[in-house]
Amino acid sequence: MVTISIAGGSGYTGGELLRILLDHPKINIKQATSQRFAGQPVGMVHPNLRGQTLPLFSKIDELESCDLLFIALPNGKSMALMPRFFEVAPRIIDLGADFRLNSAEVWQQWYGNQHQTPELIKQFIYALPELRREEIKKAKHITGPGCEAIVSILSLWPLIKHGVIEKENIIIDAKMGSSQAGSKATPASHHPERAGTVRSYLPTGHRHTAEIEQELTVNGKRPRVLISATAIEMVRGVLVTIHTFLKNDLSEKDIWKIYREEYGDEPFVRIIKRRQGLYRYPEPKILEGTNFCDIGFKKDRHSNRLVVIGAIDNLVKGTAGNAVQCLNLMLGFEETLSLKFPGLHPV
Amino acid sequence: MVTISIAGGSGYTGGELLRILLDHPKINIKQATSQRFAGQPVGMVHPNLRGQTLPLFSKIDELESCDLLFIALPNGKSMALMPRFFEVAPRIIDLGADFRLNSAEVWQQWYGNQHQTPELIKQFIYALPELRREEIKKAKHITGPGCEAIVSILSLWPLIKHGVIEKENIIIDAKMGSSQAGSKATPASHHPERAGTVRSYLPTGHRHTAEIEQELTVNGKRPRVLISATAIEMVRGVLVTIHTFLKNDLSEKDIWKIYREEYGDEPFVRIIKRRQGLYRYPEPKILEGTNFCDIGFKKDRHSNRLVVIGAIDNLVKGTAGNAVQCLNLMLGFEETLSLKFPGLHPV
Amino acid sequence: MVTISIAGGSGYTGGELLRILLDHPKINIKQATSQRFAGQPVGMVHPNLRGQTLPLFSKIDELESCDLLFIALPNGKSMALMPRFFEVAPRIIDLGADFRLNSAEVWQQWYGNQHQTPELIKQFIYALPELRREEIKKAKHITGPGCEAIVSILSLWPLIKHGVIEKENIIIDAKMGSSQAGSKATPASHHPERAGTVRSYLPTGHRHTAEIEQELTVNGKRPRVLISATAIEMVRGVLVTIHTFLKNDLSEKDIWKIYREEYGDEPFVRIIKRRQGLYRYPEPKILEGTNFCDIGFKKDRHSNRLVVIGAIDNLVKGTAGNAVQCLNLMLGFEETLSLKFPGLHPV
Amino acid sequence: MVTISIAGGSGYTGGELLRILLDHPKINIKQATSQRFAGQPVGMVHPNLRGQTLPLFSKIDELESCDLLFIALPNGKSMALMPRFFEVAPRIIDLGADFRLNSAEVWQQWYGNQHQTPELIKQFIYALPELRREEIKKAKHITGPGCEAIVSILSLWPLIKHGVIEKENIIIDAKMGSSQAGSKATPASHHPERAGTVRSYLPTGHRHTAEIEQELTVNGKRPRVLISATAIEMVRGVLVTIHTFLKNDLSEKDIWKIYREEYGDEPFVRIIKRRQGLYRYPEPKILEGTNFCDIGFKKDRHSNRLVVIGAIDNLVKGTAGNAVQCLNLMLGFEETLSLKFPGLHPV
Repeated sequence: MVTISIAGGSGYTGGELLRILLDHPKINIKQATSQRFAGQPVGMVHPNLRGQTLPLFSKIDELESCDLLFIALPNGKSMALMPRFFEVAPRIIDLGADFRLNSAEVWQQWYGNQHQTPELIKQFIYALPELRREEIKKAKHITGPGCEAIVSILSLWPLIKHGVIEKENIIIDAKMGSSQAGSKATPASHHPERAGTVRSYLPTGHRHTAEIEQELTVNGKRPRVLISATAIEMVRGVLVTIHTFLKNDLSEKDIWKIYREEYGDEPFVRIIKRRQGLYRYPEPKILEGTNFCDIGFKKDRHSNRLVVIGAIDNLVKGTAGNAVQCLNLMLGFEETLSLKFPGLHPV
Repeated sequence: MVTISIAGGSGYTGGELLRILLDHPKINIKQATSQRFAGQPVGMVHPNLRGQTLPLFSKIDELESCDLLFIALPNGKSMALMPRFFEVAPRIIDLGADFRLNSAEVWQQWYGNQHQTPELIKQFIYALPELRREEIKKAKHITGPGCEAIVSILSLWPLIKHGVIEKENIIIDAKMGSSQAGSKATPASHHPERAGTVRSYLPTGHRHTAEIEQELTVNGKRPRVLISATAIEMVRGVLVTIHTFLKNDLSEKDIWKIYREEYGDEPFVRIIKRRQGLYRYPEPKILEGTNFCDIGFKKDRHSNRLVVIGAIDNLVKGTAGNAVQCLNLMLGFEETLSLKFPGLHPV
Repeated sequence: MVTISIAGGSGYTGGELLRILLDHPKINIKQATSQRFAGQPVGMVHPNLRGQTLPLFSKIDELESCDLLFIALPNGKSMALMPRFFEVAPRIIDLGADFRLNSAEVWQQWYGNQHQTPELIKQFIYALPELRREEIKKAKHITGPGCEAIVSILSLWPLIKHGVIEKENIIIDAKMGSSQAGSKATPASHHPERAGTVRSYLPTGHRHTAEIEQELTVNGKRPRVLISATAIEMVRGVLVTIHTFLKNDLSEKDIWKIYREEYGDEPFVRIIKRRQGLYRYPEPKILEGTNFCDIGFKKDRHSNRLVVIGAIDNLVKGTAGNAVQCLNLMLGFEETLSLKFPGLHPV
Repeated sequence: MVTISIAGGSGYTGGELLRILLDHPKINIKQATSQRFAGQPVGMVHPNLRGQTLPLFSKIDELESCDLLFIALPNGKSMALMPRFFEVAPRIIDLGADFRLNSAEVWQQWYGNQHQTPELIKQFIYALPELRREEIKKAKHITGPGCEAIVSILSLWPLIKHGVIEKENIIIDAKMGSSQAGSKATPASHHPERAGTVRSYLPTGHRHTAEIEQELTVNGKRPRVLISATAIEMVRGVLVTIHTFLKNDLSEKDIWKIYREEYGDEPFVRIIKRRQGLYRYPEPKILEGTNFCDIGFKKDRHSNRLVVIGAIDNLVKGTAGNAVQCLNLMLGFEETLSLKFPGLHPV
């Protein structure tokens, strides 16, 4: 058995890691830390796991050696602690933003303060299995993408790789659930204010822009990605409506082939484009709890626009599930281990 | 007192007309027709109006003479009946799509079947007071815009008129509530399937494209508008996130001035762009029941993109309220009569 | 014109008072205080009122003389300040709990701490117009009931008065929206935790028990009321399902007559019991923003149980609207002034 | 491998059976029938199962022999077909109501029409493992309880068995999600009407009354159960608030012991009663997709009332999951096989 611990186990990502790993036949969970809840029952914070998981949260400075450490701390918190974490475990999966960007300067530009351990950045692999499977298999330290970045990159990658869309002005219109903002109550998350909302909380300036552009850079050509994020009535889930423009007059069949070529063997990417039924394009609702990224598209007859639609559960394929998929790769396990929940319908 | 009747009074638009006109000091409601509910209590279908409105629905062929007739029938139903409606009332406000487009061919192209009374099209004025107030004042026959069209046109008009944005590829990402699909139950509107949905029901091909492009044509230059519509968890309301590109480097202050110039005196258009508070941009939630169209915008530092955000209640400013505003203009009443409900918070 | 001010104007009740009074032809609003937001725009906190109400919040010690003062402070805050408020205005409407109970001891028993101005309690009339209209007309100082109490008392009063139900063990199963807990964010109101919840937050021990029993005491016989309160997915609204037992075998028609006799002339109480349509019993959804209390009932064939169903908008008939109704009575205005909003459908 | 088929596979219960059995290591699914969707893809109707389950629905008269047949047909449909089903499979699990009641007369009284195969009733065991585990293990034909009945019976059974509550007038106030009404769209399920509703759809007269009273009859003493059912904003889930009265003055600890004694070893019944955290009593939200029945209680200081709170996912422990639990018992498998999903949080 492989032992893992979680630094930052009381947030929503930490809870999902604990849930997913419950089922994992080769993993032992050793500790989960929490600043707010150290010494208190894990099941009080994650009520779905009562009686099934670790009894109590630990303090972060009580972390003992383990085989792999997940880090699910708020952005900006892991960089200074990373040297310490390196002593705790030979393998690290950091789910925060601190090591996602290749460049400390770009980090500062988007996150506002100076990177504290820029010398460690190069040790981290951007943990998107569909793009970097072989690197992840060999990696010791990986950094999980942002949830909005994962679904956007996966939706766009085949089109960028095959060079079929214009790279200037790729517009990502993201619809977001409330859980992506974390487990801490704020005036904006107060139910009477947040319920039923359609709130343009980031019409411009979304930080995931940087990592999406970074990962979609091919042959040194960086695309320009323009995000608008709107908070809607939903707890889990992200749906991105991506407005792109085709360079040449491809048919929908051509585009289907491109996605098929890239993702035909992927266990967690599905192309959803149906003529019948209610669920003809991706929808986050039926992905709750699953590790799938569903992708669909529609060509506009009125122009050369290609609308690409991507959906995930932000806490699974968007963070914790994707991390466990990477863990499986890093440790040589079957890639889909403990990630087979098919989702619920209706829900 | 002016007498009015409603052809098609049992749908959601008919219900809102009845509600808004309850309060109107100069209007008497004579009849409301319903094919499904003729002879049955109006208050059974519109439970908020029990005991306060007409007792029973009439049949459409029982319509008696009145001063003004509202038509709230499904698309495609009013064109053949219009000669008959002309005999019922000297003034007509048609809230369906049949007479919105200047050209019978364009109508057929977007709505699929041949127009049955193309010779009448020219008699109808497109009923958007903010753009055509003087025409509406003098009109006998007007045609209410589509709800998604109203908020999009109002959001874009100042920018188009002042020539500050590129007219090619204006992208309208619309978030829609369930009431816009009407009052008839369908498999897609079944609560377990529709609740919590983020459904790309029209990624391309939205019919309102035609009227938006028509109304935003200036000096013969037709813009190209690209709509994607997504159904979200909401009953009332539309929010459009419009992605446009500035031709020149205008400041946000410059843009504010343009909106101010066009809408500074408008009673129902508000520019919403705040630095503080939770409601910094337009949100449909606090517009429920109101006749406001709230508009905001944000310039992207990362490109020349200007994101414009518009919100309405689809059943008020999006249909019935806008129609009453036009009635007030047509009949020489104060424009805001019976339209002053400020909206609720929280809700 | 009568001038009023609001002590505690930034909460949800304060906001509703401001909204309702916007429309009132005989009231001038002078000040609204807020501890948290003093000096900040009222429209930032109550976004539906932007540009239509007072510009800024005042401090509570800046309150100037006015004709009537509303107090919408948290429970326990007004009792010590009341002598000072008496200097501000000759008429007081306190919407908190401090003066609702006739006895300081009972107050302490349910609210946990000692009453600070027990000598003032007798000066306050319990402000339920349907039960105490004439007293309210003559009163200087009144105390608004709790929202859950209002709907329960109105639902039960005719049955108690006519002596037709057993007074032991009246069970009130209350379904509550999130706005009743106030405008302050807490871990329990965090959207991912509160959304979609069916939470038994007060299975027993609801404080409104005391005032309901007090007001339903007839001829010295105090009934025993047993409340369970469950928080559900809703922002505004309370629905109570009240399980009572008939003493004798009355028909539904008999019961209808009893309600009719008590409420036939009431402007804001409606008996809702229909055979057809979707809205056959009271539902809070279509009461949003209205001052109605809808009441329905159903006799059980399986026993002598009579199920009584009551619904209100907790912020209108449950607090602010009921207070304005009382203001109209106290000042000799038409009782329904500025309270005629009929509600929305669908919503 | 054991082969199973499902008669009535396109409803929500059928979909859940297919989902749960995906995971089952000892079951092969042979056929799923659908009248509406015969010949069409299963994944179109159950989008969460696309590519993972049977390809197409069969007609009911195409059913081939199998080891166990699930019947998930509308109430009243299986009784006439049962002789035919007996030929299809030696083991039957009927999830409809037709064989739940011991008496054809009582059936007719509650379901309105005559039972067509009363001679078969005695062959069916009421399939509640917590009460009838040994009978189920030996049974060939079992009948799944109603969802509202399961959670009510499980919540009450220990109290009834131990004789600690009054058996007259047990009041069950049930809060129901929309999925319990099935997969067919109706005017009442139309999203704009159903969303946000608190609808007293069955204030009295709930059919599950009959089976609850039947199963809670001890020593020939039938309790009297009084249900009121309210539809709330929720897709999956039932919460019952049960108002009972203690015969003697038991402490909460005594009651805890009674539940502990009955359910201490049950894999799917949990006693939830906490002092801390947000989830102190049972909540259906965190049970979505799980086979748990969570039960809590609170003694009223104000009377001898004991409030019991029970929650389930109506489609899992309420139907399909409970049926699979019984299948495991009937076939000698581990009782929890394929039923270990712990639920999601937040959701």
